[in-house]
Amino acid sequence: MKEPVKVALLGCGNVGAEVVRLLHEQADDLTARIGAPIEIVGVAVRRLGRDRGGLPVDSSIFTTDALGLVKRDDVDVVVEVVGGIEPARTWLVEALSAGKSVVTANKALLAEDGGTLHDAAARGSADLYYEAAVAGAIPLLRPLRESLHGDRITRVTGIVNGTTNFILSSMDATGAGFGEALEEATTLGYAEADPTADVEGFDAAAKAAILASLAFHTRVGAADVYREGITEVSAADVASAKAMGCTIKLLCIATRTGDGGVSVRVHPAMIPRTHPLAGVGDAFNAVFVEAEAAGQLMFYGRGAGGAPTASAVLGDLVAVARNRLAKTRAASESAYADLPVRSMGEVRTRYHISLDVADRAGVLAAVAGVFAKHDVSIATVNQSGRGNDAILVIVTHSAPDAALAATVEELRSLDIVRSIASVLRVEGE
Amino acid sequence: MKEPVKVALLGCGNVGAEVVRLLHEQADDLTARIGAPIEIVGVAVRRLGRDRGGLPVDSSIFTTDALGLVKRDDVDVVVEVVGGIEPARTWLVEALSAGKSVVTANKALLAEDGGTLHDAAARGSADLYYEAAVAGAIPLLRPLRESLHGDRITRVTGIVNGTTNFILSSMDATGAGFGEALEEATTLGYAEADPTADVEGFDAAAKAAILASLAFHTRVGAADVYREGITEVSAADVASAKAMGCTIKLLCIATRTGDGGVSVRVHPAMIPRTHPLAGVGDAFNAVFVEAEAAGQLMFYGRGAGGAPTASAVLGDLVAVARNRLAKTRAASESAYADLPVRSMGEVRTRYHISLDVADRAGVLAAVAGVFAKHDVSIATVNQSGRGNDAILVIVTHSAPDAALAATVEELRSLDIVRSIASVLRVEGE
Repeated sequence: MKEPVKVALLGCGNVGAEVVRLLHEQADDLTARIGAPIEIVGVAVRRLGRDRGGLPVDSSIFTTDALGLVKRDDVDVVVEVVGGIEPARTWLVEALSAGKSVVTANKALLAEDGGTLHDAAARGSADLYYEAAVAGAIPLLRPLRESLHGDRITRVTGIVNGTTNFILSSMDATGAGFGEALEEATTLGYAEADPTADVEGFDAAAKAAILASLAFHTRVGAADVYREGITEVSAADVASAKAMGCTIKLLCIATRTGDGGVSVRVHPAMIPRTHPLAGVGDAFNAVFVEAEAAGQLMFYGRGAGGAPTASAVLGDLVAVARNRLAKTRAASESAYADLPVRSMGEVRTRYHISLDVADRAGVLAAVAGVFAKHDVSIATVNQSGRGNDAILVIVTHSAPDAALAATVEELRSLDIVRSIASVLRVEGE
Repeated sequence: MKEPVKVALLGCGNVGAEVVRLLHEQADDLTARIGAPIEIVGVAVRRLGRDRGGLPVDSSIFTTDALGLVKRDDVDVVVEVVGGIEPARTWLVEALSAGKSVVTANKALLAEDGGTLHDAAARGSADLYYEAAVAGAIPLLRPLRESLHGDRITRVTGIVNGTTNFILSSMDATGAGFGEALEEATTLGYAEADPTADVEGFDAAAKAAILASLAFHTRVGAADVYREGITEVSAADVASAKAMGCTIKLLCIATRTGDGGVSVRVHPAMIPRTHPLAGVGDAFNAVFVEAEAAGQLMFYGRGAGGAPTASAVLGDLVAVARNRLAKTRAASESAYADLPVRSMGEVRTRYHISLDVADRAGVLAAVAGVFAKHDVSIATVNQSGRGNDAILVIVTHSAPDAALAATVEELRSLDIVRSIASVLRVEGE
């Protein structure tokens, strides 16, 4: 039997504890798959002495000195499930530079400063794996990073945040408003006490940056991602979408632009109910990938939770352990293409706009004139009367997002427009 | 710039030609991703001098001597897209034993005699990749082979044959019978002139064997797979399924059995319309994977066609080329578990049975008595009158398939049973 592969585990919350449990339960299988046993030699935690619910590791290996643990000579692999930028970055850079393999679920750090980690991995000739950082247990990064490397990915469209998908699915099913649906999600444990990272789209934006980097062989950071959350999505928006045969999802969309660049964005959008992503309910995640030769692919599964995330961590752990035994490493970061990231204003999108207008002659002409002025072409118009008012529902052809935003702004200032009931981007057609 | 990685291409039909075209079109990207260019040094074909539609390779590299090409000292990687058992097996064993990496789409050979290929790969310390053999462009084998290696897969349920899925989708949509739907599929190019391999389930069974081998770390061959095609699926079956809120799909199902074994089977089955696989229409493929920690995952995409299959071949080609440059190889076959494969009779399934019976006293008691005799528990019964006859629709609880089959056999012999209108297994509940 070969020497064990020695692992330092940083963090022992929900995911970390599940990693420990699975490593113990599946020890024989993992040893057979790797060719050597895995041994946890240290677990870094914030506070010692907490009740860890009978985890199958000796309590003597717990420590509060994460950096000291990372630096130990007998550590081969560092598994980080703490999250956040610092001190995680310091620990991982230390590990990678010293040639220790890293498995991390830290999407925020990868999106904020993935380049620093990749550079350290290159310096230390170390493996950096992070399947658990995006869409939990769904094997997504390895397919993008390897299986599709002979193809040209043109677009990635994903539902990558379970909390917001739960809220939007619930609004769609019950007609509830955002506040009520959020409350339900919090009660059921789908939303955290402070839901900002989820509902404002920060979590999805970090994942979008990671996906885009892999898909387009280009470093894309969180700051490059246009981001809109779901807090402004109203029951009226949901009703408008329904009337169009659509549903509203918080999408992350990474796409090649016509001019040799890429754009990466996160925002709520209407998609047709016939689109494969429309059926992704509850807290599930799914990512739709379009590639030139492969065509349309979809990956679906649980995006969060202790066990699914731990499954992804362990898959990576098996891979890096095998690489160490074979004295090799995975292909390093592929960022050769270095494509320019376009701003949201330049991206071509389609809008669905629902207006309350005065019901009198000349109104449609005035509204249409605003679209024409901004060079936005109208695809469909529906007008329905309501007393002295009328509802105008307009769907545009695709146009630069800045032109669409300016159109809405100018409509808002028209006397004859009493209110703008709903503005949503339309995707997936 | 590093020396090119030299490739021998065996076969230049639909997929082969697409591989050549994509290698040419994406040469710069592939070189950047691999770190060295790919060069096709020879193409083995059955007949020289055919018009190849202006493929971007010098016609002088075409040869009819595939074995001679494989043996050339300057060949690093062999790509095989010919199919069939022989002579492909001889070529690939020759290549692998000599340490040349192999990328193949040959599902029949892998399912029939994959062990011989894996053994040759181990002997020659060579890479054997075959993503294109199952579900075309859907990255499926790499996730099973790597991403989920830290988890315990309990069940794989797949729609892995596009032709039969097209036929069944069409029967479901139009109410047509099998013959009519097959004719349409042939006209549209979804079915071959001799559709036996597809409609009798041979193609799906080969893929099921490959998936089960990877999922359960056990060598499973085509002969281990229970197989039923779709030629007996009638318009009445489709109507019965509809009445139950179900649709009929040709499923491959690989599952752990309660007693430490595995079972692998291909047969038509009713699944609820709410199941994620129910929405997989046309010629698309999808594979649903259940694992202990990861939960439910689904992979969806195009299962066949020149370009999607070539995308999978190229992804593998990039991987094996990188491995060669790094002087390493992928993890070899994982078959350590060596679980026993159970026969179909032992597998627990559920049946939906629709009977035409005489409408008189004692009929239900007689029918129920047959189920009880075989120890098969009934879940639901629906009886509806029709003149002197009645229709009895029975859905069972799960029971050994042999007991269910024996029950149907005995029902058939009862005087009061005028005919058995439909018998289908029920899955996915």
